[in-house]
Amino acid sequence: MSNKKTLNVGIIGYGFMGRTHANAFRKVTNFFDTPFQPVLKAACGRDGAKLKAYADKWGWESTETDWKRIIERSDIDIVDICTPNDSHAEIAIAAARAGKMVMCEKPLSLDGKQGEEMVREIEKAGVANMVWYNYRRVPAVTLAKQIIESGKLGRIFHYRAKFLQDWTINADLPQGGAGLWRLDAAAAGSGVTGDLLAHCIDTALWLNGSIDNVSAMTETFVKERKHQLTGQVEKVEIDDACAFMARFGNGSLATFESTRYARGHKALNTFEINGENASIAWDLHDLHRLQFFDYNDEGQYRGWRSIHVTDPDHPYMGNWWVPGLAIGYEHSFVHQVADFLQGIGSGKPASPTFRDALETQYVCDAVLSSARSGQWVNVPKLS
Amino acid sequence: MSNKKTLNVGIIGYGFMGRTHANAFRKVTNFFDTPFQPVLKAACGRDGAKLKAYADKWGWESTETDWKRIIERSDIDIVDICTPNDSHAEIAIAAARAGKMVMCEKPLSLDGKQGEEMVREIEKAGVANMVWYNYRRVPAVTLAKQIIESGKLGRIFHYRAKFLQDWTINADLPQGGAGLWRLDAAAAGSGVTGDLLAHCIDTALWLNGSIDNVSAMTETFVKERKHQLTGQVEKVEIDDACAFMARFGNGSLATFESTRYARGHKALNTFEINGENASIAWDLHDLHRLQFFDYNDEGQYRGWRSIHVTDPDHPYMGNWWVPGLAIGYEHSFVHQVADFLQGIGSGKPASPTFRDALETQYVCDAVLSSARSGQWVNVPKLS
Amino acid sequence: MSNKKTLNVGIIGYGFMGRTHANAFRKVTNFFDTPFQPVLKAACGRDGAKLKAYADKWGWESTETDWKRIIERSDIDIVDICTPNDSHAEIAIAAARAGKMVMCEKPLSLDGKQGEEMVREIEKAGVANMVWYNYRRVPAVTLAKQIIESGKLGRIFHYRAKFLQDWTINADLPQGGAGLWRLDAAAAGSGVTGDLLAHCIDTALWLNGSIDNVSAMTETFVKERKHQLTGQVEKVEIDDACAFMARFGNGSLATFESTRYARGHKALNTFEINGENASIAWDLHDLHRLQFFDYNDEGQYRGWRSIHVTDPDHPYMGNWWVPGLAIGYEHSFVHQVADFLQGIGSGKPASPTFRDALETQYVCDAVLSSARSGQWVNVPKLS
Amino acid sequence: MSNKKTLNVGIIGYGFMGRTHANAFRKVTNFFDTPFQPVLKAACGRDGAKLKAYADKWGWESTETDWKRIIERSDIDIVDICTPNDSHAEIAIAAARAGKMVMCEKPLSLDGKQGEEMVREIEKAGVANMVWYNYRRVPAVTLAKQIIESGKLGRIFHYRAKFLQDWTINADLPQGGAGLWRLDAAAAGSGVTGDLLAHCIDTALWLNGSIDNVSAMTETFVKERKHQLTGQVEKVEIDDACAFMARFGNGSLATFESTRYARGHKALNTFEINGENASIAWDLHDLHRLQFFDYNDEGQYRGWRSIHVTDPDHPYMGNWWVPGLAIGYEHSFVHQVADFLQGIGSGKPASPTFRDALETQYVCDAVLSSARSGQWVNVPKLS
Repeated sequence: MSNKKTLNVGIIGYGFMGRTHANAFRKVTNFFDTPFQPVLKAACGRDGAKLKAYADKWGWESTETDWKRIIERSDIDIVDICTPNDSHAEIAIAAARAGKMVMCEKPLSLDGKQGEEMVREIEKAGVANMVWYNYRRVPAVTLAKQIIESGKLGRIFHYRAKFLQDWTINADLPQGGAGLWRLDAAAAGSGVTGDLLAHCIDTALWLNGSIDNVSAMTETFVKERKHQLTGQVEKVEIDDACAFMARFGNGSLATFESTRYARGHKALNTFEINGENASIAWDLHDLHRLQFFDYNDEGQYRGWRSIHVTDPDHPYMGNWWVPGLAIGYEHSFVHQVADFLQGIGSGKPASPTFRDALETQYVCDAVLSSARSGQWVNVPKLS
Repeated sequence: MSNKKTLNVGIIGYGFMGRTHANAFRKVTNFFDTPFQPVLKAACGRDGAKLKAYADKWGWESTETDWKRIIERSDIDIVDICTPNDSHAEIAIAAARAGKMVMCEKPLSLDGKQGEEMVREIEKAGVANMVWYNYRRVPAVTLAKQIIESGKLGRIFHYRAKFLQDWTINADLPQGGAGLWRLDAAAAGSGVTGDLLAHCIDTALWLNGSIDNVSAMTETFVKERKHQLTGQVEKVEIDDACAFMARFGNGSLATFESTRYARGHKALNTFEINGENASIAWDLHDLHRLQFFDYNDEGQYRGWRSIHVTDPDHPYMGNWWVPGLAIGYEHSFVHQVADFLQGIGSGKPASPTFRDALETQYVCDAVLSSARSGQWVNVPKLS
Repeated sequence: MSNKKTLNVGIIGYGFMGRTHANAFRKVTNFFDTPFQPVLKAACGRDGAKLKAYADKWGWESTETDWKRIIERSDIDIVDICTPNDSHAEIAIAAARAGKMVMCEKPLSLDGKQGEEMVREIEKAGVANMVWYNYRRVPAVTLAKQIIESGKLGRIFHYRAKFLQDWTINADLPQGGAGLWRLDAAAAGSGVTGDLLAHCIDTALWLNGSIDNVSAMTETFVKERKHQLTGQVEKVEIDDACAFMARFGNGSLATFESTRYARGHKALNTFEINGENASIAWDLHDLHRLQFFDYNDEGQYRGWRSIHVTDPDHPYMGNWWVPGLAIGYEHSFVHQVADFLQGIGSGKPASPTFRDALETQYVCDAVLSSARSGQWVNVPKLS
Repeated sequence: MSNKKTLNVGIIGYGFMGRTHANAFRKVTNFFDTPFQPVLKAACGRDGAKLKAYADKWGWESTETDWKRIIERSDIDIVDICTPNDSHAEIAIAAARAGKMVMCEKPLSLDGKQGEEMVREIEKAGVANMVWYNYRRVPAVTLAKQIIESGKLGRIFHYRAKFLQDWTINADLPQGGAGLWRLDAAAAGSGVTGDLLAHCIDTALWLNGSIDNVSAMTETFVKERKHQLTGQVEKVEIDDACAFMARFGNGSLATFESTRYARGHKALNTFEINGENASIAWDLHDLHRLQFFDYNDEGQYRGWRSIHVTDPDHPYMGNWWVPGLAIGYEHSFVHQVADFLQGIGSGKPASPTFRDALETQYVCDAVLSSARSGQWVNVPKLS
């Protein structure tokens, strides 16, 4: 390995996100020239056997079964939180107080209030921090951001986003516990709102600015499911589906929708933005493409362009292969690590920081509140 | 021509819809075996020169410049109303009272109250009647209806529809008068809600049943435009864009959106319906295709099918060409006439009747009301 | 109807093409300002009952059961030939000698030698003439021609075309006789080469200039089929599939392929042309779209544009509906009639004339000859 | 790391393929349970500085500047050849004689004769061997293979394949030397035939069986380019484009085409196969999708299915993420290593072996020979 300065990572959680992060830490310097070399120092989880298998598979140098040990260890520079949502706050705050850099899975917190505390503590500690809203770093999404910043779109009229899945239609699927904590309101905080819409909202805030107010509806299609932890059939407390309308600060109108009951859609995360002079659309099922319509094209020859985002002058792509050869989902995490490492101590921290992610939390709160009240709800501004 | 019984048509209005209807009346018996032969007997409009040109082009046998003459003439069997929305009620009621069959352009009326009167009168007269919601008769849309009726979808979870255009972005476009009455609230009643969403709602009610309640937002992006009739810059009173959420009687959740400010979309009328076992999607830009996902397909080989709706066993298509050869927009009107003629006196009138179209009007009213109040609004039930 | 000069049409044949042509003659003046008004004067066919039904359906004023009567009648201005390929020459030559204008279905003739005689006679007679290669007049194809003529493509490197169908896979399908003469070499001259590739070749010659030489292969997958006329199982003499490589006069390389055994493709007529600076692609299954890639677009934002060819400034489209509303297959015939009428006596006859179509015949001959010999074969130049 | 048995890899070449292979060796055990753990033991290249940078970046434990050292070192188990084509034979034979396992980049050799010698030596040595035709292991391509083996397609009628690029259109691009040896016939053996068509042919032989004979054409569009090594403008000896027709042993007809002059296509590697009962299509630009048409679907609902190949029951995908989350190009190499490791000593070596790859070489030879002679050329059978 190179003799660049190393940063030791301690990861907490070894589930799906534990794998995407480990892969990112392992690969990043193979493809990106970063100022630091991450080292897979310690992995933490409660199930010793599973933890061992995970650590072996990915080459984590050591293991811990109590997350507090990760915080205490002096050889850990970065604490990476991959646990269910209900433990983000406690771990992140402890890590910050211990002076560790913190990378936290999304959503930041169970709600805005909790998120505010996390931001307060992390900023007081002055440590580098980031939330893993990875989709910002799909090259086509980053390219969309560049197009928007170039001013090509002009005044924005419309934003629409969806995140559609179909994996919980089966009413026999249990809730709670390993692999299914996302169906348990206690662990997840909410259903599709925090899990899926949070992604859409993060992207939207990044691309289109702040949201003023929202009107939402939610639904739980399967009212009761057996709980894996209690063994009892229990009421399902999460939102299976959520749609909301919104008005952005820039005057544009928006619709958002998410569900786990859209048969035929596995992970159809999409957005579209319509401006006065141009429009952009993207979806995760063909994540390497960006749809772009430019009204400035010669009249008879206007059409939606399907940009195959694999050229060296496309965001991040100069570090991968050659034109035409696509990268996939996991690469967005590699880019996130690369940008995080680049941002450390640079004065320009990589986004989204905890503070950025708090804004998403505020929108989620407003959405859930509106769904309960049937009223339009204003989104608090970040102080 | 054949010696089948003729029905004389008197058309009122010679604009865009005057052309689609004339084409439909002229072509229908070339392709469909109908019990009646429509005859283009009389065309009516206020501008004599334009009327003459229109009548010559399409072979209307005579012309009138006062619509009341069409009602009075004893040689007219069917009155076809293609005028701006604010005159539908008066003409339709007069025609019904005169015992004429009535075909009326959509939307039925300026609002539900007016529509109720129209339904009352038309039903009292007992004459055949229909509203030109032509998209029901795009073969792919009719095929969607057949799939739904086959029960393949199972319980329905989601419905979403959009009608996106981009032709009024230019702020220099005037409002009102010839060709632009759709931008004038006095003539049109509303903006995209009555013009575009009415189509989406008609299709939705047909495919997915009744709507219980809605929450809507509207926006007028260009606040003032020069009015063609007055020559003055006047406030724009129509809705440029409208989005709403809805709950259907069958428990499914819906989002609807329409705008004339979606750069890159000319007439993107779409719907998607997600059921427990299958999903369907369609859009007007590729109107000859239906997207269909069937979860009952063998697991590894599941995927969205793009059905090229041009086979003889597809709705209406056995009357046109051969597999692979598409038909277009205008054909939906031909089908509408064919079905209308088939329905006369059969005891099974072709839909949507005035009564069917009133339900769409109720939804539009609720949408506009909700947009004003910011509240969820219940949709009245058809009595 | 208007008082423009009329031209009386006598059609010979009432099959599939009889319908597309009748529709075109009936509709053309509803949509296009032509210098002449075609009149459906006489229809001719051998089966009296079917002929009567056809004439009634379409409003042909009279019928004949001997095609020579059409030639003899002094009230016929245009003879339109829709018969199987083996009778084109005799009828066309007789019509030309009688001073009639001649419109002839494609392919022009059974082979180049026969075609040469037809060209000689038609040019000697000096009558207006055209061959119904209708796909040139699909708006998207005409738009492709305009792009090419604008010089946007630069030097051309590649041309590729296909026409894929799947309707003869069933080995129980008989050959010969009504509806199936295309499977009978005696009536059709060849299989997919004359039926389908002739279309591809006509388009290619129009878009990309002359072809120098070809190397081809053909195959007959089902070797024997019952013949409808003899009732016997007979050897199938047509080519079920044909592929060929070609070199164009402009130095570009080409591949062509046609078959009726491509499961899943109903009528997939496609072409693509790659130039130094831009590329174009089209297919009949989505005939209202043109794919266009322009290397002159700004680097990061290059992509294939899908042009929805429905704007008023697109070829022919100003005469139809509004942006976003597609037309279909049959409209290409309407355009062909409009252009033919426009060309009469103008000094600029509409293409493809008999002479133009002869060039396609030469290529077909060379293809079939190469398939027999296994050698490259030069294509004769038009004198 | 786990305590599974290790295998030490010595790689020769550090260019584009050096990166794809290093990545594969590093990642494979993070995702696949293989019987061996590859160790990145030694990297070899002639340019010491570049080699050092490469080795550092990827964690190769040592470096060598003479490839013979890799062969000599007793701590190397697998020799991986990533050099230009003209050195494959010498290195592979030396490695085999030294008893090393050999993995060799494609194409196997400069021609069939050379390939035969390589096969002879490798089989005499009895060492594990494989050629890196990676596209077989794109999950969608492997799924295609499974569908074919299931018998769903029935009798095969057609196969067509293309590999279209556009990166050498610029006539100022030099030939030869670093990064551009693919344009130099001396180093590459041929142009697109060995570079791109070899991929198409390998896939075709795997999916559709052996090829009997071919008829080909080639072209060199830019006749002279400056040579990077000599500094002189020299004749370009490679084929810029190549198309060929073929007949397979199973009676199906095929067309193949490759070029580096297809503007708008970066790496459009495609195939389509049409069977009696079903068809399949794939392309590298959307490599995570497989198009599948099944005639056994219910008549009205038939359509091409777009299978999003990201489910756990799709080939290889159970080892990656969750449904809807795509992988990319590089993963095909990871799969290749996984399969290679699985095959060692199992009696079922992973394909394509050197022997398998020799068959592709025979087809390439026949193609180039036919292009020279203008004749159909038979493909030798593997003995």
